[in-house]
Parts: sequence; C-alpha cells; structure tokens
Amino acid sequence: MPLWKIYHPVGAYTPGDKQAIAQALSDLYGRMMPRFYVGVIFQAVGADNFYIGGEPHARFVRIWVDHIARTFASDAARAGFFKKINQILAPWIADRGYDWEIHVDETPFDLWTIQGHFPPREGTEDEKRWMAENRASPRTHA
Amino acid sequence: MPLWKIYHPVGAYTPGDKQAIAQALSDLYGRMMPRFYVGVIFQAVGADNFYIGGEPHARFVRIWVDHIARTFASDAARAGFFKKINQILAPWIADRGYDWEIHVDETPFDLWTIQGHFPPREGTEDEKRWMAENRASPRTHA
Amino acid sequence: MPLWKIYHPVGAYTPGDKQAIAQALSDLYGRMMPRFYVGVIFQAVGADNFYIGGEPHARFVRIWVDHIARTFASDAARAGFFKKINQILAPWIADRGYDWEIHVDETPFDLWTIQGHFPPREGTEDEKRWMAENRASPRTHA
Repeated sequence: MPLWKIYHPVGAYTPGDKQAIAQALSDLYGRMMPRFYVGVIFQAVGADNFYIGGEPHARFVRIWVDHIARTFASDAARAGFFKKINQILAPWIADRGYDWEIHVDETPFDLWTIQGHFPPREGTEDEKRWMAENRASPRTHA
Repeated sequence: MPLWKIYHPVGAYTPGDKQAIAQALSDLYGRMMPRFYVGVIFQAVGADNFYIGGEPHARFVRIWVDHIARTFASDAARAGFFKKINQILAPWIADRGYDWEIHVDETPFDLWTIQGHFPPREGTEDEKRWMAENRASPRTHA
Repeated sequence: MPLWKIYHPVGAYTPGDKQAIAQALSDLYGRMMPRFYVGVIFQAVGADNFYIGGEPHARFVRIWVDHIARTFASDAARAGFFKKINQILAPWIADRGYDWEIHVDETPFDLWTIQGHFPPREGTEDEKRWMAENRASPRTHA
C-alpha cells in the first residue's frame, strides 16, 4: 500500500542503508497493516538529471509516496505521521547533510490488487489474517 | 491516457516480452479509446533497490498506473477491469512465479495534453477520428 | 511543489539542455511560488522499454507532473498553463521532431514537507520569506 519511491544521489546509500530505511518504514506501517504492503523502490539520480529551482543538485533526496490502504483520520494523525517519518529518515538524510522533500498522494483503495486479490478492508478478519501470515490470500468473508 | 509503469526484476523480460505485454494492454484499452493513448514504460530494478516489507525482493513486479481518459462507470466495471488485467498479465507474471502488485490512480482529464492538444471527450466525433487515425490532431468541434 | 518527471529517449538531451528546460520551468513557476519548489527529474528510456499503442517508440517524450502547492483557480488559468508549458518546451520537443504527452495530477497540499517543514500557505508572510530567501525555514506565523 504505501509505495515509496526514493530518488537519491548516486552512491548515497549502501544496500545495508537501503534495507535499514525499508525496515524502519515497514516497522512504522507494520503496526497498522500487513507488513508486506510496504514497498520501497530506490533510484539513484545523477546531478545532471536532477534540478531544483533550475540548478543541478547533487545532494537532494526526493521522496514520492502513494498511500492506498489508509487515509488520515484526523489532522493530528497527519501531522504526527510526517513528524514521525521525518524523524525516522533523519539518520540517512538530514544527519548526512542532504536536502530533502517528501510528498504523499492518496490513491483509490478499490483500484488496487495484490497477487490478483483486492485487499481486505481495515479491521476485517481477512486483514487480520493477511497481517498475521504476512501474505495475500483469497478472502474468506464477503 | 493510461500510463503504465512496470518495475520488474533485472533480466525478467526480453524486448519481445515487453512488446507483447504492451500489445496485450493496448488491445484491451484500444477497444474503448485511441490505441496510441496506451503508454507503457518498463524499468528494471535490482533486488538491492526494491524492498517489500523491509526485505529485498528479487522476484517482484510492481505496477503503477495512471488512468486519465476514463473513470470506471460502475463497481462491476472496476472489478471486471482488474480481473481482466490480472488475466492478461498472468503469462508474464504469475505463470513465471513472480509476485506482483498493481495500483491505479485516476488523474484529472483536463490536465492532460498530447502533442499540445487537449484530447477530445469520450464519444465525440473528434475522439472517433483520433481513434480511426490513431494519432492526435486539432479539434474540429468545440 | 511541482515535481516534473521527464522520460525521454536515450541521448536526447545534453546536461545543458536539461538545465535549460529546468530553468525555463523554474522561471514560469517562480513568478508565483518559491523557485526551489520546482523539482525536475530526467530519465532516459530506451525504445525497448517504452511502448506507445503497443509499439516501441524511440522518439517520444513522456512527462508526468505532480502539482502540490497550487491548484488552478479557473478553466482559463488551466488552459493558459498548458498552452504556456507546451510553448516553453517546444524548442526541446516539438521543434526537434519528438512526439510528446504531458499529464498533471494534483496531490494534497497537507501531505507535503520540505526539510521537515510543512510549506506555508499561498500569500502568507512565511511564503513571502521562503520566496525571497529561496529556501525552507521554520514558520514564524501560525
């Protein structure tokens, strides 16, 4: 559900860094939804392919996220989420002196399948099973 | 209109596979809209750049689609569409043992141009001409 | 705010071309918002990874944009924007014989941070400061 796309400078992250970022994000989302919902794709972008305000930028991390499974229930939840993810990412971004920008879109829950299955609604028995088994399976409830 | 972005494992698909997938999708959409609306971009992603639930995944196909020209008229149409595309893609994904996830967003029809033209509305004379000629051209109706 | 993703043929653009495109876009948006809001990412795509209507296309520029900071206030503003960007891009696309397609999505203003800050609303004192200083900084107003 969340699909995270992380554009980063060439050579910024080792595979270990990348897995640690993906783990930290999966730990956050995994409290509320099946952990395997969390997809993270990293893409290195050279400074001559990345411009901020018309200037090449060699130290920028640009993150773009699609949220599918959940929408924010309140303004406080929304603000808390961004505070949290900025904290989680700090060791790999702010603390290393990179600039960064993050934006999230919310896309329609009903236009989403995993392994060909429409994921179960939040809080259902089927979602609990997907969460416990950490994999997609056919619905057992309507 | 539909822009399909297909992230796939390195080496998963030959150019022939990729064209066959693009053809199958164009056959599906092309019954309802100009065939040249269908854009498909493939991008190979190494396992150390692709994480599901915090783990590197070497056999995952992640598809992200923007629908622009059409929205689903009914719940049945929506469910039928996803059933159809999962069937169409099966020979290249499920049948080869890959895991996969697909999500679709619907973006504003009015914020879209091809060759500098705003595409004609569904069912109009202009759209019929675009469909018959399989290319964009100036509007002849308001 | 606007994030521009430009998929282009391999070898289509020099770094100088790419910076000139990013500058021209930043000049346009920078009249209305902080110039550093304008992010542009270029990605070369080989013809065997890019299909239009099921056929590989070696001369296509596909642009996908997320607008975050602003939505169009009127239909005239929207049409004028697309006319303008198609004009701005012409020297690098139409005039070089490339085909092209552009679509824009509008994503939620409240789901966006830069350097960990939620950007100020349009027209506020904080936005004027961000614009004047061309960088993000903590809010001084609620």
